[in-house]
Amino acid sequence: MSGLSATRCGLPKESVAENGAPPRGKVLTIDTMNPTVKMVEYAVRGPIVQRAVELEKELSEGRKKPFQEVIKANIGDAHAMGQQPITFFRQVLALCSYPELLNDSTFPEDAKSRARRILQSCGGNSMGSYSASQGIDSVRQDVARYVQQRDGGVYCDPDNIYLTTGASDGIVTMLKLLVCGEGASRTGVMISIPQYPLYSAALAELGAVQINYYLNEEACWSMDIGELQRALDEARGHCNPRALCIINPGNPTGQVQNRKCIEDVIRFAAKERLFLMADEVYQDNVYADGCEFHSFKKVLFEMGPEYSNTVELASFHSTSKCYMGECGFRGGYMEIINMDDEVKAQLTKLVSVRLCPPVPGQALMGLVVNPPQPGEPSHENFMKERTATLSALADKARLTEEVLNTVPGISCNPVQGAMYSFPRISIPEKAVKEAAGQGQQPDMFYCMRLLEETGICLVPGSGFGQKDGTYHFRMTILPPADKLKILLSKVKEFHQRFTKQYS
Amino acid sequence: MSGLSATRCGLPKESVAENGAPPRGKVLTIDTMNPTVKMVEYAVRGPIVQRAVELEKELSEGRKKPFQEVIKANIGDAHAMGQQPITFFRQVLALCSYPELLNDSTFPEDAKSRARRILQSCGGNSMGSYSASQGIDSVRQDVARYVQQRDGGVYCDPDNIYLTTGASDGIVTMLKLLVCGEGASRTGVMISIPQYPLYSAALAELGAVQINYYLNEEACWSMDIGELQRALDEARGHCNPRALCIINPGNPTGQVQNRKCIEDVIRFAAKERLFLMADEVYQDNVYADGCEFHSFKKVLFEMGPEYSNTVELASFHSTSKCYMGECGFRGGYMEIINMDDEVKAQLTKLVSVRLCPPVPGQALMGLVVNPPQPGEPSHENFMKERTATLSALADKARLTEEVLNTVPGISCNPVQGAMYSFPRISIPEKAVKEAAGQGQQPDMFYCMRLLEETGICLVPGSGFGQKDGTYHFRMTILPPADKLKILLSKVKEFHQRFTKQYS
Repeated sequence: MSGLSATRCGLPKESVAENGAPPRGKVLTIDTMNPTVKMVEYAVRGPIVQRAVELEKELSEGRKKPFQEVIKANIGDAHAMGQQPITFFRQVLALCSYPELLNDSTFPEDAKSRARRILQSCGGNSMGSYSASQGIDSVRQDVARYVQQRDGGVYCDPDNIYLTTGASDGIVTMLKLLVCGEGASRTGVMISIPQYPLYSAALAELGAVQINYYLNEEACWSMDIGELQRALDEARGHCNPRALCIINPGNPTGQVQNRKCIEDVIRFAAKERLFLMADEVYQDNVYADGCEFHSFKKVLFEMGPEYSNTVELASFHSTSKCYMGECGFRGGYMEIINMDDEVKAQLTKLVSVRLCPPVPGQALMGLVVNPPQPGEPSHENFMKERTATLSALADKARLTEEVLNTVPGISCNPVQGAMYSFPRISIPEKAVKEAAGQGQQPDMFYCMRLLEETGICLVPGSGFGQKDGTYHFRMTILPPADKLKILLSKVKEFHQRFTKQYS
Repeated sequence: MSGLSATRCGLPKESVAENGAPPRGKVLTIDTMNPTVKMVEYAVRGPIVQRAVELEKELSEGRKKPFQEVIKANIGDAHAMGQQPITFFRQVLALCSYPELLNDSTFPEDAKSRARRILQSCGGNSMGSYSASQGIDSVRQDVARYVQQRDGGVYCDPDNIYLTTGASDGIVTMLKLLVCGEGASRTGVMISIPQYPLYSAALAELGAVQINYYLNEEACWSMDIGELQRALDEARGHCNPRALCIINPGNPTGQVQNRKCIEDVIRFAAKERLFLMADEVYQDNVYADGCEFHSFKKVLFEMGPEYSNTVELASFHSTSKCYMGECGFRGGYMEIINMDDEVKAQLTKLVSVRLCPPVPGQALMGLVVNPPQPGEPSHENFMKERTATLSALADKARLTEEVLNTVPGISCNPVQGAMYSFPRISIPEKAVKEAAGQGQQPDMFYCMRLLEETGICLVPGSGFGQKDGTYHFRMTILPPADKLKILLSKVKEFHQRFTKQYS
């Protein structure tokens, strides 16, 4: 926030009226507002999505369009694309919302016992009470048990678990703790390019320095230590690099990092004294043969005490993705490893100002980490629903890659995990020029045209970052199979038409 | 964040190890973390509450104490103190969580129609979908209708309604937009003393200047324009005052400002070019005869176009207080008046980064502004529950004032509204000295002693701010009547004992 002249943020030109009459001109204008907020960008809900909403409105008003419906593949919003909630989770949430239902014999016993456990941990047995700012104790205990089991027994301390308002809240809170310094000693944070724009938005708002490291598209969006080193060395001159963010499985790029890569990254972070932030919200979304999710924490502890006792790590999870897709509840947690005790006390104080994360989201997070067990009445149906959702996603991941790779001028890495493909698209020189003429990024121009001509809403690669001179779009694999097929064939037709027109 | 030396936030002393072995020392320490976060304080969940939690644990482990239970009167957490949720609200939330219940004949039709309306506005008819970042359209429309009716027909535009994650979220977001400038042109924000510490915490974190104006305890915590002018004039030298925050009904002081006072404040804001922030989350919590809630917006528009066309105002409401007390759902909204269009676009962009407020909280906010209407099946029971809760609070407000004023050395203004009394307490010189010896504020020392001896948890006045040399505590009126009586008599006994001991 340095370098702002007093005039820009000082009193507006008009002198203050002394006669008590209201003076002209606003107190808060684009010139006198927080300049870091102006630097924030968030493509996932940017202009293209606003236009998609307008088009839906125009269609509903009967306006003629070259398409019957808008298909949104811009955001990882599973239920909006027709994915069904997990019955057990919703039964427990209904029981917690209206406990009279605990007397309803149609609800299974395991749902009732989960609901009782949650309500007993709520003040006055009500989800309407504030929880502890760090989150409901019993939920944090269940999260710890889940993480420990996931990581092959590596100990997880419930005191290191903080429940959050979705993963975004935890990520921004951690970045907030890390930001400090002015000028050349300002905190720098390494993020992948392509990235999920929450990171660039938060860093802009916090006035931190964004350090870009590029994922290797040629090697299926893998991380390359040489590239991390290059980015870090170039940054050292003008900022103080203190943190390294990894999204695995990847958003927007859909890769799953292998164990060796994660080890190398941990070694790099240890050597370069970087705080690791592992965004692992897609940990159950792994589709490709031979791919497996490895949590940073598990790998860290398997590397032995010289790493597990020193490397500082925050890992983030959420109710919004995986097989549950419960975005609207804004549930999540973060686990912090090797955090300095005084800093941890500051973190606990900081989260207390916002009182607590939403309790229904906390309850849902608690169910995700403590689902029906074998022998419980709801187990069979839970597994059926979970498996059906994940295998449908796996099928759509394969279908997306296959179809896009049949299009000349589109090349798509395998969607190994997460919920997105990030194909590279060739855009003819003529189109690049026309985009420039309209002051648009070429892939924004491309996606806008796609939307206007086909009703398909994708996000341009420029919203996530990409190597100069390359163009991409991010597309979710969430639409139902039949709609996804239509979407892919329309993209195929459009790309051929677009390429022909501008060649 | 200016004035930080590079050494404080630069690389820690130890040189970076080049041999790849992890170096000693943490990346993130109390000395290298965000300095503005360290300045944040939040008394409502401070050390006294942490001690109360410890004491509860010790009691549960059978440790002997001079009391059987800890009574928490530190936070406005109604359900935790036994207040019952509104049946209708919880029925609708259960229906929205588990729509299969729409086929259950035991649920009333008006609850089902509300649930259908909410679900139809959710993507895929699921509360698990992200909503629009500004909030669910139909809920914003219902909020607008409610506000317009509340304000005697003054027009309310749904486009000016932003749903939020509790009121705190909206308040911090608005302050974030207002913060700008460096040194003497840094944004200053006027807040009442005593204040609700969210304001001081947010201003500290944002690096803005806190401008204190004192409420007039002698005149029942009313606002005094002369005092506003004094505070503003003294601040003008070293910062750029841009906003004025008012909490009405008052937290922690429980006053209800009259119409004349609000008019004067609006005139003052217009004259001095201040953005008004009206924290009106207690708008249904008015108990005293002759007191009435006047929204800033209504008064602003009744003052005529020279004010209603110019004065910038943000008003905040929440599901957490009033008769519903649904804190855990983190629901709320803000209405913005006369905001510059470009700034509004920036606000909409900013909230989009966090995707959306929790949908169950949005649904609940929608129910609060659209409760059962006369003739609907749930209306009678809704009114019964609402009235019972509010009249019980009114009784407890009177009881608290009466009993506290019988104690020599305690003087308590009438609890006209909100959920708190903020009595002034006399603390003997000896006790002040002993507190100083322990590095504690005298009223913190007093409240800690009260907690250890009686199990009663209150918040010291110093956590909210008070005139130098005066001491207070904040106490909620939320405990059930029988417990409140015990609490008040214990406070009475303690104060007499404490005064005797230190005289």
